[in-house]
Amino acid sequence: MTFDIDAESCILAEGRRYATNPSVMTHQAYGPLVGVPRILDMLAGYGVKATFFVPGVTAQRYPALVERIVTEGHEVGHHSHTHRPPQTMTEGEERRDFELALEALDHLGITPRGHRTALWAPHWSTAALVAEYGLAYQSNLMDDDRPYVLCTDRGRIAELPPHWSLDDYAQYAFMLNPDIGHTVESPRKAVEVWTLELDAMRDYGCLLVLTNHPFLSGRPARVKALRSLIEFALDAGDVEITTGAVIAERVMADPDASVRTHEPIVVDPALYPHR
Amino acid sequence: MTFDIDAESCILAEGRRYATNPSVMTHQAYGPLVGVPRILDMLAGYGVKATFFVPGVTAQRYPALVERIVTEGHEVGHHSHTHRPPQTMTEGEERRDFELALEALDHLGITPRGHRTALWAPHWSTAALVAEYGLAYQSNLMDDDRPYVLCTDRGRIAELPPHWSLDDYAQYAFMLNPDIGHTVESPRKAVEVWTLELDAMRDYGCLLVLTNHPFLSGRPARVKALRSLIEFALDAGDVEITTGAVIAERVMADPDASVRTHEPIVVDPALYPHR
Amino acid sequence: MTFDIDAESCILAEGRRYATNPSVMTHQAYGPLVGVPRILDMLAGYGVKATFFVPGVTAQRYPALVERIVTEGHEVGHHSHTHRPPQTMTEGEERRDFELALEALDHLGITPRGHRTALWAPHWSTAALVAEYGLAYQSNLMDDDRPYVLCTDRGRIAELPPHWSLDDYAQYAFMLNPDIGHTVESPRKAVEVWTLELDAMRDYGCLLVLTNHPFLSGRPARVKALRSLIEFALDAGDVEITTGAVIAERVMADPDASVRTHEPIVVDPALYPHR
Amino acid sequence: MTFDIDAESCILAEGRRYATNPSVMTHQAYGPLVGVPRILDMLAGYGVKATFFVPGVTAQRYPALVERIVTEGHEVGHHSHTHRPPQTMTEGEERRDFELALEALDHLGITPRGHRTALWAPHWSTAALVAEYGLAYQSNLMDDDRPYVLCTDRGRIAELPPHWSLDDYAQYAFMLNPDIGHTVESPRKAVEVWTLELDAMRDYGCLLVLTNHPFLSGRPARVKALRSLIEFALDAGDVEITTGAVIAERVMADPDASVRTHEPIVVDPALYPHR
Repeated sequence: MTFDIDAESCILAEGRRYATNPSVMTHQAYGPLVGVPRILDMLAGYGVKATFFVPGVTAQRYPALVERIVTEGHEVGHHSHTHRPPQTMTEGEERRDFELALEALDHLGITPRGHRTALWAPHWSTAALVAEYGLAYQSNLMDDDRPYVLCTDRGRIAELPPHWSLDDYAQYAFMLNPDIGHTVESPRKAVEVWTLELDAMRDYGCLLVLTNHPFLSGRPARVKALRSLIEFALDAGDVEITTGAVIAERVMADPDASVRTHEPIVVDPALYPHR
Repeated sequence: MTFDIDAESCILAEGRRYATNPSVMTHQAYGPLVGVPRILDMLAGYGVKATFFVPGVTAQRYPALVERIVTEGHEVGHHSHTHRPPQTMTEGEERRDFELALEALDHLGITPRGHRTALWAPHWSTAALVAEYGLAYQSNLMDDDRPYVLCTDRGRIAELPPHWSLDDYAQYAFMLNPDIGHTVESPRKAVEVWTLELDAMRDYGCLLVLTNHPFLSGRPARVKALRSLIEFALDAGDVEITTGAVIAERVMADPDASVRTHEPIVVDPALYPHR
Repeated sequence: MTFDIDAESCILAEGRRYATNPSVMTHQAYGPLVGVPRILDMLAGYGVKATFFVPGVTAQRYPALVERIVTEGHEVGHHSHTHRPPQTMTEGEERRDFELALEALDHLGITPRGHRTALWAPHWSTAALVAEYGLAYQSNLMDDDRPYVLCTDRGRIAELPPHWSLDDYAQYAFMLNPDIGHTVESPRKAVEVWTLELDAMRDYGCLLVLTNHPFLSGRPARVKALRSLIEFALDAGDVEITTGAVIAERVMADPDASVRTHEPIVVDPALYPHR
Repeated sequence: MTFDIDAESCILAEGRRYATNPSVMTHQAYGPLVGVPRILDMLAGYGVKATFFVPGVTAQRYPALVERIVTEGHEVGHHSHTHRPPQTMTEGEERRDFELALEALDHLGITPRGHRTALWAPHWSTAALVAEYGLAYQSNLMDDDRPYVLCTDRGRIAELPPHWSLDDYAQYAFMLNPDIGHTVESPRKAVEVWTLELDAMRDYGCLLVLTNHPFLSGRPARVKALRSLIEFALDAGDVEITTGAVIAERVMADPDASVRTHEPIVVDPALYPHR
């Protein structure tokens, strides 16, 4: 279970003009102010540990919350500094943003083990950046539903593959301006999607990387619905819930893990003339 | 339970050219002509009091309806004059619009206690405007699901936090031009979303601010579905349904209420270069 | 029950360039080629009569089909000639298109009693045009869910109010280019929406004007689902299914029917500066 | 059952710039890397044969996979070389792309019997191209739900009509950039749509052409849900699951099959002035 505490950052990345709208900004602040504490209480009730990906600006704005996450035994991951997608930055800008995030977390005494790129819009070089800074894993690539070892030219890391279908944005994101989505599903339906996937993954021996945003999934009925997912997992007997760091460590130590090298797709402009 | 009687105003705010289409205009007029009377009858059957946020232009166009709302013991709130979002106006224009709405309601003998900003697109200064004009509360900010005291430089008001997920637009808004949405959910599903939230809020001691639009939720099956939500609430035993004004009064008198100050988000253009 | 046999016309109205794509054109032709015959067979099984709104160009392209509709006792209504929305035409162009449609139907020996405007985008003068040409009703305005008498400066007609929520576009329209929608709901859900509305309308004494498009609702499972709606109606005991022409006649003869005059909305540019 | 193994191609056709985003590219690679093998295993368990439409570039990138498909007795169909829609190409460019696809499949020893055009955006001349190159059928036109014979000026082929409502894009496609959709339905709902259609088609004697994309429908819960569709079909007793090539052969040999000629729609610019 992963929670991306984007708070204001993901909206500001769309355009800093949105900061002038207090309804929008407080919609985002709901995550750290209400959603995360409620989720932490809920997780504590089950003794479940999760991974919270925290942008640097969120860590700076809500340091006590981040400290509580650590204190309660959860993992804090690197989720960029500003939540701007690298695809809109040069590699140099991404590196600088990456470093600022490290500094912000370091300021709270946190050395992250894992990275998730904003909006799943990395560069091909991002994985090497993750390795270069000594992180153990990222959660960015979608070509598998089992974790694997990713070789970069600056070392090996683990990849814990996420997927859009396991992101609460697809179920709950609704805002007119900026337009972040137009969907308000019943929590029963959202959790049905995730529970059916978990159940089917038991047959295939997969890793379900659930991506939730506390400003969405921290609402009362949604937290309550998450309880039913956790209870399904705990009752199954063959499902383990743990942090990304723990999984990454196992993958790197597993001689049977798939080992892959990241090869950029080279496209022939004659075949694909549209830029 | 709140009902925003936007009628024609919310469409005209998109562009006054839409006034040339009688299908669109009558789609909106359905609210005051059919939806609100039906909703009032339904509420009377349960003895439930609600808050109706009424733009000034709606009050001018449908005065008898607004008077009936008051006569039947419901609250009429301030919902701007034209339903143009302040984000598209200067603060001066917003103030003028705010005053026009007060005048329109005053003309019907109504002194509103609460304000909701059109499209939840206020300025940071809107709350102070609400306080300056002596209103007791607004329903604009989304950083909590419990009401709280909001300090402005012109006095304190209560905030009764709404949320996009508790707005019937997400379930029912469908129109091609202007594009107000593309969703026609079953009333069963819509009310399931709201009932699950209410049920979960009982555990957390929250305030559910339901935002319905009579041009959407005044349709027969949707009113019937709302009955099931009300019956769920009344049967629960620990749920109270009352007006925003009553809640605001309690919040302001509650020594345990959260007290917050509205601090505009200051954004570093170096971090967020995209305007 | 009304069926709009738009066929190719509603797509060509988006741009005639779409005629170059045979997948798109055949998607539309499915309506007259497969959907309508299947729907006619189904209706015959229940002895139910419906109203088919047929654009002039559809009548010219599929004359035998239109003749079958008439032969089997259903009503054929006027649905413009080209399915171009009057909002994109001058009133003079709309009149010419209106006349072409009358000519196309007349060529098949049909004098339509009712009119529905393409895309529900009429002018305020459209109702008077309908009256001027001697039609008995239109199905365009959305400010009620009971039929009423509409006074125009060229005579009185009946209005049988439709609604976007009772249109199969909201449940089934899916095409990428042109973008007509992105929704493929289960027929069970679509019919639930309509059945719940019908059931609630029984309490309020309303008219349910269902708008279906055979290129969408003529698919096998959707026709089968429509059967369940019809069976619900027939079993209810207090629901009558009949044509628009029959209802219009009753409304015009009903001394208790609501009588309304169509008054264009005049908008103050000072209040709504955005054109 | 048809599976379009678009992999990277359908995204590159939107713009080759998306190749710079490894999250997007791996999202697509999931199809051949994980989805197809899982689907093949599943199909083998039921002894069901399906048709896999494979763009030339996919065949070049994943030759071993395509060989496995053939080895296991399934059909490989022609799905263009680059997945660029012909509507964005001249007829000459489409022909060249068509030939490249034939060459790519031939390189693997495959002579395809059927063709499906990218994005269902063919030219009116596409069917003749299919006939000219000796293929037996295409699956492009949507004007029926029974297969038929299509006469072109270069010979006769069978048409196995697909439909947007039977495509998993409508149920599962979700990606922000490029925007391929915003829907993540429960596999239960997706399969309900398809199962209801299959069930109703039994009454009408139709052909259900299911179009699935392994990068979407290869996810664990979605494959599991497909099992329930297959089991429904096998249990029905009157449903046969087979490849497009087998069906095409029967249609061409069936004296009762509908025979049609493809006639381009000629549009009068006076009626439809909008290009």
